[in-house]
Amino acid sequence: MARIAIDMDNVMADLTSHMIHLYEQKHGVRVSMESLNGHPDGGGFPIEGETHAFIREAGFFRDLPVMPDSQEVIKALMEKHEVFIVSAATEFPLSLKEKIDWLEEHFPYISWKNIVLCGSKTIVDADYMIDDHDKNLRYFKGERLLFTAPHNIYLTDYKRVNSWKEVAEYFQLTPAMV
Amino acid sequence: MARIAIDMDNVMADLTSHMIHLYEQKHGVRVSMESLNGHPDGGGFPIEGETHAFIREAGFFRDLPVMPDSQEVIKALMEKHEVFIVSAATEFPLSLKEKIDWLEEHFPYISWKNIVLCGSKTIVDADYMIDDHDKNLRYFKGERLLFTAPHNIYLTDYKRVNSWKEVAEYFQLTPAMV
Repeated sequence: MARIAIDMDNVMADLTSHMIHLYEQKHGVRVSMESLNGHPDGGGFPIEGETHAFIREAGFFRDLPVMPDSQEVIKALMEKHEVFIVSAATEFPLSLKEKIDWLEEHFPYISWKNIVLCGSKTIVDADYMIDDHDKNLRYFKGERLLFTAPHNIYLTDYKRVNSWKEVAEYFQLTPAMV
Repeated sequence: MARIAIDMDNVMADLTSHMIHLYEQKHGVRVSMESLNGHPDGGGFPIEGETHAFIREAGFFRDLPVMPDSQEVIKALMEKHEVFIVSAATEFPLSLKEKIDWLEEHFPYISWKNIVLCGSKTIVDADYMIDDHDKNLRYFKGERLLFTAPHNIYLTDYKRVNSWKEVAEYFQLTPAMV
């Protein structure tokens, strides 16, 4: 049994799709996922800085859509491994309860004991980390898996997983388990 | 430079004194700190279970008094070491924002990057842990410091610190620093 630390935003929760949706609602312009490639997280929209306002609004983190296949794959991972959800959240105090409520709704099989809301992830001790950010993976001592997001598309420093199906393959979960 | 993980409740925040105060407000009975010795955390009051209701009320964690000398000693520790505040908080979602707001008021020099709100502390990687609970210290691989609280008064498994002045001595902080 290994301990796996899993990030929330852009890994379990589809933050980028939600930003595109909110941007379209507000400005009537549908930005493509591809056009965000290589921009910093939350960047690449016609009006720069707009998405920074979104994430500070009440309800933003509560309403995020679930990343495809994450529910099934995480449930299957938990049968073989110790899973911790590790989210950099203390920068946005409003997000804290929203993230717990979101997890309770979409991942009710994850205990509060296995949730970590933090700032820097340098304090995390685990065997694997699944994250979309270089800054989180960089100081991690275990195996690092970069979950693909537009902002990290050109990063080549880590083993990359493009979807939860690929995470399932990496951990050799059989189709019957997922 | 070492990394020090510091607990909040009954270490930085004087939870027990606040429970005694709330109990007196509600029932007109002033319970002594000593009479709680050896009881489980929150236990030992005439009406058992009452304190479990207190900690679920909005505002409870926001209003806690600061443990004597903790502000000065932690500030001094931060000059020589990397300090992380690590609080088991995800069981009580209402407490999350209250804890951040409390830290911002009483410890404004601690960055959001160095705050960890979690469940199980087994995931914490640090050199020292200052905590009042056996369950948190038990699986910690670094140096363990048991901060005295009524519920742990008879525990003999750890190096004990009875006050923040003793923490300052342990880390060899000079009076000028504190």
